[in-house]
Amino acid sequence: MKFEDLKNGIIAGDRRALARGITLVESAREDHRSRAAELLAALPKDRAALRIGLSGTPGVGKSTFIESFGLMLTKRDLRVAVLAVDPSSARSGGSILGDKTRMDQLSREPRAFIRPSPSQSHLGGVARRSREAVALCEAAGFDVVLIETVGVGQSETVVAEMSDLFLLLLAPAGGDELQGVKRGIMEMADLIVINKADGELKGAARRTCADYAGALRLLRKRPQDPEGFPLAMTVSAIEEHGLDVAWEKMQELMQWRRAKGFWQRTRAAQARYWFEQDVKHRLLAQMETPEAREALETLSDRVAGGEIDPSSAARDFVARLRG
Amino acid sequence: MKFEDLKNGIIAGDRRALARGITLVESAREDHRSRAAELLAALPKDRAALRIGLSGTPGVGKSTFIESFGLMLTKRDLRVAVLAVDPSSARSGGSILGDKTRMDQLSREPRAFIRPSPSQSHLGGVARRSREAVALCEAAGFDVVLIETVGVGQSETVVAEMSDLFLLLLAPAGGDELQGVKRGIMEMADLIVINKADGELKGAARRTCADYAGALRLLRKRPQDPEGFPLAMTVSAIEEHGLDVAWEKMQELMQWRRAKGFWQRTRAAQARYWFEQDVKHRLLAQMETPEAREALETLSDRVAGGEIDPSSAARDFVARLRG
Repeated sequence: MKFEDLKNGIIAGDRRALARGITLVESAREDHRSRAAELLAALPKDRAALRIGLSGTPGVGKSTFIESFGLMLTKRDLRVAVLAVDPSSARSGGSILGDKTRMDQLSREPRAFIRPSPSQSHLGGVARRSREAVALCEAAGFDVVLIETVGVGQSETVVAEMSDLFLLLLAPAGGDELQGVKRGIMEMADLIVINKADGELKGAARRTCADYAGALRLLRKRPQDPEGFPLAMTVSAIEEHGLDVAWEKMQELMQWRRAKGFWQRTRAAQARYWFEQDVKHRLLAQMETPEAREALETLSDRVAGGEIDPSSAARDFVARLRG
Repeated sequence: MKFEDLKNGIIAGDRRALARGITLVESAREDHRSRAAELLAALPKDRAALRIGLSGTPGVGKSTFIESFGLMLTKRDLRVAVLAVDPSSARSGGSILGDKTRMDQLSREPRAFIRPSPSQSHLGGVARRSREAVALCEAAGFDVVLIETVGVGQSETVVAEMSDLFLLLLAPAGGDELQGVKRGIMEMADLIVINKADGELKGAARRTCADYAGALRLLRKRPQDPEGFPLAMTVSAIEEHGLDVAWEKMQELMQWRRAKGFWQRTRAAQARYWFEQDVKHRLLAQMETPEAREALETLSDRVAGGEIDPSSAARDFVARLRG
């Protein structure tokens, strides 16, 4: 696809062009990286989707939730993109959204766009690519971008850094214990949504919701929250219950944050953060070219053999890189 | 001091020259950094001290242990240097060895050299400087370099990466609980030394020692350990009891590791590690010059304002840096 066609296709909201664009930003090839940068620079910056970060461990019904929630939004004539940030795929080569059949109906919906997570990369790379994929979806005029991640360690932080609001999806717990959700994740959440509030689990879902509502009240008040937020609520993705309330709450929150300037400030701070991350990434990537790796190996052998001290060797290497 | 005098003074084991040299490697000034690199490159690489990493939380009697242990070594005609890696000084500006009176006798001993930890820097910088200070002490012909750290988080890992053996100092516990020592730290230790095995605490020290001996047996066997290691033992630094046994055990361990080639392999791997760390540090330091900071600020403002995307801005910045 020619550059102009790719760019115009994305701006027109063409899903094929968008998919191509994302493939481009995901590529590690230097010529692709150049084209991707060109593309990002050429796309309009005045379109802003609502970026919803969504985390939940396997088993909480994340796919079902995204499918039902996404379909509800498309029925309201909103265009929805679903992306995944999957740190585990770095090792396994697998991908949490690789199986599109997980969201069968949504994937056939013309107003929806589902993109599996990129694999075979470390979290730093995954993060940058996902962030650029979000930018492409925004430029393509999507109204909502859902950024999904599994609840393991660092990936929530990465997703939160590219989201306007963060949703933590949980399953009803057996007793009154909080399901080992780390304090840091709790503090990140704007909405805690207890899924599977249906059938036999309805009571358990309500109790779990009450537990989390209590836990949220114990957290320090954040300036970016209006009265009543962060909040805990129950939904049933399967019975499509409570999803409209969740959507209303999200809109209420975002309207307040926009009016008070928090949305704008967060976006600006996030852009600065990604800029600095990207600079660091690019500086360190200078070690990864074949020539650099070879020079590093040679020097490393000499350092290991005691011929040259680590600092002098590092100095030599960086001096050589720079000129 | 002239460069040649500094170099020759260190090689001759002169403590004033050594102190000057360490001040040089600790400095952040660019001209000092250059001179420090020159110095490190010019010093002999064929001297090897026994590098002992030593960790213990405040209250376990670390200073008393170092004083008694150090004096025992100097009495055996060994030259002992004591350095500190203190991550907390980065924030507080304080220093765990700042108060030399803590090791009153040892500091007056001509065969000993005590150096407070550098302050006002982040752990990355502290680590590099400490590693270079160790190299200077070795070049100055010290037989033993004790590298002290407080038991908080990452600093043990940093110290272990510059040590031949790692000693964990503990106080007797009240009951039979293991004093919340993290598994990672346990796995790092070659010797666990329970201090204060004197007076009323003697029994508690023995029980604590037995607990740790049991815990050590549950850890996976490491290839670099001969039969009987890692081990737990009791000492009394105040009564100068057990210190000779600890020293014998350390020598036994190191003789075995040297004979089997583990010492050599570990040193080589550590040198490679520090080389890579140093390269990364230097690459990222390109962001820290006044001109770079100014360019970063300007671009960051434009990124925050939505004029330019983070990736393009990062690309521009790095391209400008490189030429």
